[in-house]
Amino acid sequence: MTVDPVAKPLLRALAHHANTTPPIWLMRQAGRYLPEYRAVREKAGGFLDLCFNPALAAEVTLQPIRRFGFDAAIMFSDILIVPQALGQRVTFEEGEGPRLDALHDPAALDRLRAEIDHVQLAPVYEAIARVKQDLPPDVALLGFCGAPWTVATYMIAGCGTPDQLPARLFSYRHPEAFAQLIDRLVKASVNYLVEQFAAGVDAVQIFDTWASVLPADEFQKWCIAPMARIVTAVREKIPQAPIIGFPRGAGTELWRYLEAVAVDAVGLDWMVELGFARDHIQSRRTIQGNLDPLVLVAGGEAQDRATDAILEAFGEGPFIFNLGHGIFPDTPIANVERLIARVRGAKS
Amino acid sequence: MTVDPVAKPLLRALAHHANTTPPIWLMRQAGRYLPEYRAVREKAGGFLDLCFNPALAAEVTLQPIRRFGFDAAIMFSDILIVPQALGQRVTFEEGEGPRLDALHDPAALDRLRAEIDHVQLAPVYEAIARVKQDLPPDVALLGFCGAPWTVATYMIAGCGTPDQLPARLFSYRHPEAFAQLIDRLVKASVNYLVEQFAAGVDAVQIFDTWASVLPADEFQKWCIAPMARIVTAVREKIPQAPIIGFPRGAGTELWRYLEAVAVDAVGLDWMVELGFARDHIQSRRTIQGNLDPLVLVAGGEAQDRATDAILEAFGEGPFIFNLGHGIFPDTPIANVERLIARVRGAKS
Repeated sequence: MTVDPVAKPLLRALAHHANTTPPIWLMRQAGRYLPEYRAVREKAGGFLDLCFNPALAAEVTLQPIRRFGFDAAIMFSDILIVPQALGQRVTFEEGEGPRLDALHDPAALDRLRAEIDHVQLAPVYEAIARVKQDLPPDVALLGFCGAPWTVATYMIAGCGTPDQLPARLFSYRHPEAFAQLIDRLVKASVNYLVEQFAAGVDAVQIFDTWASVLPADEFQKWCIAPMARIVTAVREKIPQAPIIGFPRGAGTELWRYLEAVAVDAVGLDWMVELGFARDHIQSRRTIQGNLDPLVLVAGGEAQDRATDAILEAFGEGPFIFNLGHGIFPDTPIANVERLIARVRGAKS
Repeated sequence: MTVDPVAKPLLRALAHHANTTPPIWLMRQAGRYLPEYRAVREKAGGFLDLCFNPALAAEVTLQPIRRFGFDAAIMFSDILIVPQALGQRVTFEEGEGPRLDALHDPAALDRLRAEIDHVQLAPVYEAIARVKQDLPPDVALLGFCGAPWTVATYMIAGCGTPDQLPARLFSYRHPEAFAQLIDRLVKASVNYLVEQFAAGVDAVQIFDTWASVLPADEFQKWCIAPMARIVTAVREKIPQAPIIGFPRGAGTELWRYLEAVAVDAVGLDWMVELGFARDHIQSRRTIQGNLDPLVLVAGGEAQDRATDAILEAFGEGPFIFNLGHGIFPDTPIANVERLIARVRGAKS
């Protein structure tokens, strides 16, 4: 990928350029830890009402940019927008997380559409256009979707689950039906990401939040292979589409993921050892990560030490500072300010 | 470690001898998936009443040996016996998991004893002696304890928690107090394991169930270093004590764990890739594992394929067949029988 040398810092990092000061954004940066978010959320009604209201979704996407001056805005939305656009009923009950009409058996797959409904998703694309208009020129706009495996775990269980047992059991009992579901999610994800680019995002991230629970050969089948197909198919439409992969908890299988999946950057969870990632990954991919989001709740010296260790390991290479998972709702805003100052102060 | 060539198969495997037929046992093999266990449990009263009743604890320990002929019996007990013997109140409510008087702040540590109370633990040692007496001569008897980090997560939270947030937050906010708690658990674990050997166990396993959630440098401090101290201290008392370590979810940090912790065997979780473990671990340690316990619920061809892949990868080296985590309560007994037949049939 070739990039204008005065381009947005995040896109320069994604194009594998070294940083002087690393760009920074935080997963789930538009969210409940911000009072201005909570105020909008209250007047929006339910969580999905907010996602599908272009004006309000744009507003909460922009809030953390205004407050903190992050180098990227990520569209306020949810990975379960895709099952909904495939015809599965999705609701969010206050304090309870998502609820879906669970896919208990292979026959239930017949209830789903073959393709996502772009009419239903129109408000998302409109929100992207709105944010694009109001974003400072040096701030990148990120779209996203969930990886097929992670999305499938919710579709099958009908909710979040420890260790994602229902989806794993379904995949063992009905491997062909499960492969069909993953196929449908691959196509849906490609279409959804391509439309997000058309609407104006600069780059996308694909979240595989539950990659960590699969045996290695299942990880190959349900995470690596579908991800490789998505990246290839998106690039057929948009040849230089910058893509960040986030296979959380991939552990020793991170290698195989990076051999097969041509993402520009890899998001690292907070368990990945810094020296290992610097020595073996950063020469091949831009690294994004990987502060323990809990250290940002704790703050103080523990936070500074952890921040410095990450800057020291990755700071010079192509690198995007981020957390190793989403920011916690009870994170003090002062700790976020302290983090940004420390990351940007690293320049001097 | 030198071993009598006609010794118990499990001890031969722990002494790094190659197998013709690998010995097999299953984590949590004495448990709710067995009707004979449920019958005893009903008459015992609460879960801890069963743990502390030598006759009944011995009985449920022996049940899976009688039914399946496993190569090892593991004492029926719980890792939270240690906090209880340190003076923390522990209860188990039906269907709710353990409840402890949570250690909310450093001052709460003063409520704990400096050393475990062996009088309180006497029924455990008596149960060991009883099992020993009734065990077939070729079956090994395993004792166990939880690793300090994993036990500390319950002591601080007062219950099981997703991602073990309370303990991680405590360790960031109060690193010195947390180090003192880990120290106390190291000493308690050493004393407890040594007494279990004195009572008659042939080998022990140390469970670090929640090793997976720590950043690498915290993993070094709270998992690797304490484990290394425990193994060294136990061997000072019992020079050839066979010890199995089980750092579940250690991922890329499994390397550093094995460099520092002189266990004879390493239990692998079901996410570890077989080729990687065969090529890089089995020459240095006996491997134990690593069937996905969920495939044993699913059964059928998926189970056979996964079993065969493990046998093919590890079958010849020093190897103990096991699951990658505890057996699920809803595992059909027929699937366990099918597994054992397949593992033992591998001889021909």
